[in-house]
Amino acid sequence: MITRLSTYFVRTLRQDPADAEVPSHKWLVRAGYIRRVAPGLYTWLPLGLRVMKRIEQIVREEMDAIGSFEVRFPSLLPREPYELSHRWEDYGDTLFRLQDRKHADYLLGPTHEEFFTLLVKDLYSSYKDLPLILYQIQTKYRDEARPRAGLLRCREFVMKDAYTFDVDDDGLLQGYLAERGAYIKIFDRLGLEYVIVNAMSGAMGGSRSEEFLAIAENGEDTFVRSAGGFAANAEAVRFPLADPVDWADTPAIQVIDTPNTGTIGELVAVANERFPRGDRCWGAADTLKNVVFMLRHPGGASEPLIVGLPGDREVDLRRLAAAVEPAVAEPFTEVDFAAYPQLAKGYIGPVSLSGGSAEQVLGAEAGYRIRYLTDPRVGDGTRWVTGANSKGQHQLNVVAGRDFRSDGVIDVAEIRQGDPAPDGSGPLSLARGIEIGHIFQLGRKYAEALGLQVLDQNGKLVTVTMGSYGIGVSRLVATIAEISCHDKGLAWPRNVAPFDVHIVAAGKDGEVSAAAEDLAAQLDAASVEVLLDDRKASPGVKFADAELLGVPTTVVIGRGLAKGVVELRDRASGEIAEIPVAEAAERLVALVRG
Amino acid sequence: MITRLSTYFVRTLRQDPADAEVPSHKWLVRAGYIRRVAPGLYTWLPLGLRVMKRIEQIVREEMDAIGSFEVRFPSLLPREPYELSHRWEDYGDTLFRLQDRKHADYLLGPTHEEFFTLLVKDLYSSYKDLPLILYQIQTKYRDEARPRAGLLRCREFVMKDAYTFDVDDDGLLQGYLAERGAYIKIFDRLGLEYVIVNAMSGAMGGSRSEEFLAIAENGEDTFVRSAGGFAANAEAVRFPLADPVDWADTPAIQVIDTPNTGTIGELVAVANERFPRGDRCWGAADTLKNVVFMLRHPGGASEPLIVGLPGDREVDLRRLAAAVEPAVAEPFTEVDFAAYPQLAKGYIGPVSLSGGSAEQVLGAEAGYRIRYLTDPRVGDGTRWVTGANSKGQHQLNVVAGRDFRSDGVIDVAEIRQGDPAPDGSGPLSLARGIEIGHIFQLGRKYAEALGLQVLDQNGKLVTVTMGSYGIGVSRLVATIAEISCHDKGLAWPRNVAPFDVHIVAAGKDGEVSAAAEDLAAQLDAASVEVLLDDRKASPGVKFADAELLGVPTTVVIGRGLAKGVVELRDRASGEIAEIPVAEAAERLVALVRG
Repeated sequence: MITRLSTYFVRTLRQDPADAEVPSHKWLVRAGYIRRVAPGLYTWLPLGLRVMKRIEQIVREEMDAIGSFEVRFPSLLPREPYELSHRWEDYGDTLFRLQDRKHADYLLGPTHEEFFTLLVKDLYSSYKDLPLILYQIQTKYRDEARPRAGLLRCREFVMKDAYTFDVDDDGLLQGYLAERGAYIKIFDRLGLEYVIVNAMSGAMGGSRSEEFLAIAENGEDTFVRSAGGFAANAEAVRFPLADPVDWADTPAIQVIDTPNTGTIGELVAVANERFPRGDRCWGAADTLKNVVFMLRHPGGASEPLIVGLPGDREVDLRRLAAAVEPAVAEPFTEVDFAAYPQLAKGYIGPVSLSGGSAEQVLGAEAGYRIRYLTDPRVGDGTRWVTGANSKGQHQLNVVAGRDFRSDGVIDVAEIRQGDPAPDGSGPLSLARGIEIGHIFQLGRKYAEALGLQVLDQNGKLVTVTMGSYGIGVSRLVATIAEISCHDKGLAWPRNVAPFDVHIVAAGKDGEVSAAAEDLAAQLDAASVEVLLDDRKASPGVKFADAELLGVPTTVVIGRGLAKGVVELRDRASGEIAEIPVAEAAERLVALVRG
Repeated sequence: MITRLSTYFVRTLRQDPADAEVPSHKWLVRAGYIRRVAPGLYTWLPLGLRVMKRIEQIVREEMDAIGSFEVRFPSLLPREPYELSHRWEDYGDTLFRLQDRKHADYLLGPTHEEFFTLLVKDLYSSYKDLPLILYQIQTKYRDEARPRAGLLRCREFVMKDAYTFDVDDDGLLQGYLAERGAYIKIFDRLGLEYVIVNAMSGAMGGSRSEEFLAIAENGEDTFVRSAGGFAANAEAVRFPLADPVDWADTPAIQVIDTPNTGTIGELVAVANERFPRGDRCWGAADTLKNVVFMLRHPGGASEPLIVGLPGDREVDLRRLAAAVEPAVAEPFTEVDFAAYPQLAKGYIGPVSLSGGSAEQVLGAEAGYRIRYLTDPRVGDGTRWVTGANSKGQHQLNVVAGRDFRSDGVIDVAEIRQGDPAPDGSGPLSLARGIEIGHIFQLGRKYAEALGLQVLDQNGKLVTVTMGSYGIGVSRLVATIAEISCHDKGLAWPRNVAPFDVHIVAAGKDGEVSAAAEDLAAQLDAASVEVLLDDRKASPGVKFADAELLGVPTTVVIGRGLAKGVVELRDRASGEIAEIPVAEAAERLVALVRG
């Protein structure tokens, strides 16, 4: 079927949408692919839907190729199974909850681990039934705190979620690798440049987990790589705890007056000026910065959390968020400080506070407990300049393990270009990416919570082990747009383009229009998807729209016709070639079929 | 791809599901097509999803063929536009409502009139942009009071909803007819026997409206037809008001004592025994029965409603529900009677109550007003035996128009086989059907509520007129199953079957299995969708499952193989034919391609 722009439901816009933060968002709206309904909720217009369906089809083919079976669960789900898995609570505000007319609790599914588990429990009972891989391509819901970037962070979105079911760990690994292989094929077919990095498994639980990140400047995720092969989402990097250092020669704590040292830089300057150390100057890395957050737990409980880290690094809020999930870390406000007067704002330190020992203030013996976690660089024996927990005072020569002890390690400091990889494989480089796929070894968490067991070879009940595998299908539309777009609009790779060829009839005379119609008909007969710009508009308007819409190949039929030629424009490279009109159909069919 | 039952995700069940009321529900669950998650919420298993996708594809092709464009709206929608159309309130408890984390109101879309209207308003501005037809195939939500019959009345379901946009009434008619024509093609391709009947437009508003009903014994809807061409949903039939009758010779009202006449039958017997009329016996049709309901309005207000109708007919509760929508009519309880002591239960009548006139009790002059609506048969001058509004008393010779006046007509009496068609086209026959499609001329209701206007040829703003057109896609799966199933399971028409051919390898020896594999491979190569029963199960189990699953053609490869033949079984007719194994592939390909 030839699609004609004169009647097609598309309107290109000249203005950028006010809320567009990234190019994909801007171009998808301006080119008439999507339209906003409410924050994080978009309508798919015909062009956008065509792209999404092509992506869906590639995902489906590769899922089917590894022998998995497609099902479809409701999006509206009863509460009970999510209660058993604790996700009803753990998801916090991100879960859309509602009640039906009988006041029974329901939710809009964010992912379907619970119901897949129950379905297999319902129908399967023996090891002979396994392995099994099920998947669905379905609408999902998350009440994001900050929906943004168009389709990149939505509240309603399309996801492929797959689940493997196995009797043992080796089976789980095989299923995991099968999905991993399928993902590689899918993202390769989509023409994406991506990395596979180690990931946190977040609220899902489970053990091994990797993310597929499309490399993109505007990506929300930061990942790190080393030349030696280390690759991980910044959220998931765990540096080893520093080896213990002998503190025998470290002098005792010295309290120093440091009024007006609001910043680490001022503190370091004062230390160097008034309390010089013999061997070298004090640096920001010698200070132990203690940052307080208020942790909000899913059940509603709150508690302060102090993070101690070298003063030359900031807390990376995304790493912190991942580390404390399902709790949420919020800034510690003036109101919070007022409620915890033992915390001297700007002078917090682990050792003493109001003259007491660290244990009294921060330990379990106190009437309440403030959790104090430290960066892995704060190893036993390390020596620090840090707050004295008294306004205008700091302490020198505070030694970890000698003068204080933290409640554990928290690895949430910013990572820098050149930091050594945790596995010793060389310096790290940082880049940004968009999460397009995520694969997890869930293990037995959901099977245990929901009682999914099968009989093994010996007639004994064993708990099934599961994996969970997601691809953001609607997000892929934006990701591909983001990576491939040019300065004048979209530029789709051939595999996902809404049309194969965009024919521009550039000129008013009947011959141009007849030649355009003729070429369109020839291509259509060869099953090439044609978009024909048959509007009564100027060539300039048509060219601009062709660039905006981003079909991979544009054919311009215009002045050249008199000489028997038409113009082929390659959207991605910008290259223009003149070819004889008589050969156009054949050349285009060959081009499209690759 | 060959699908093998040895690994396919399907388990057939021997037991009927406890809640199955209709065959389609029973067989779809037992054959492993769907699985219940909660009331009115089902999971599509691989077999069910295959059938639904085939139906979707047929719907999509016919929608595209009339030049309509596919879009997809979110299911999660903000409240405001539904507020402007009054549907936020009018939908009552049937609308799923929820709040996001910022306490903003949202709903799960039951249909999308509002948002389609806003989308066109957003992008279009001129009569030159019209006509336009848009559609989507999308998940919808209704919090049904009584979800039932499996997929026939669900709370989450898949619907195709289309909308036409035109500048004038003639355009609307053309769009309506285009959709109507597409529906006929769709339902014909699906092999359904159906009727097109006049329908109520319900909460949608609008004028002309027709329903497509698949003829089915277990259908929820009743429709009527006459030999002369009248056809309507029973809910939508409107009989003409009876012509006025001269009452000059009718005697005055006579109050009669009628203790213990709890039924119309008893009342008629007493009347004939003690107050015989000269010309003939009293019959039930001479009595005016007055039935009270409590009307609950969407806003929460309630009021009694009295329906007066000939005593030989019952109120049809579905007709009543349709007539009072968006209000809901509930039975009048003892508590309600206690609150309205002027209504003498069992003796309600329009004329007098506690000695007062009808106007005093039922009219606007009273402190409160009880609405009294009458059947169209209660025309001016008709003479009735009815309640005296006093316990144990009735009245004879009550004449409509002389002794009382109703507040209007309500046509909710049961319709009977043989009743005359309202248009005089002959006696009516009744049958049952399942609503599979509904087409409406909405007119300007939504465009006015949401301000959708375009400039006409003269540069004047005109309000757009719209139509709305629905097909229950997931319901069609059940409807086709319901109509085509046999006593041992499903029996799909070829156009929607999950597979084209079901090969049963009946026998353990290697030759049987090799022949089955070989045939499957030949068919697969010819793009025939093959389900191969390669399980280690007895032929009996395999035959039973083949009947349950309902693939149109089963090929049995078994004992006949020694003679070089295989068995072809036609699921619908039950016919069995032996054909040479060498010809099997060719014959089957021809059969499938029809």
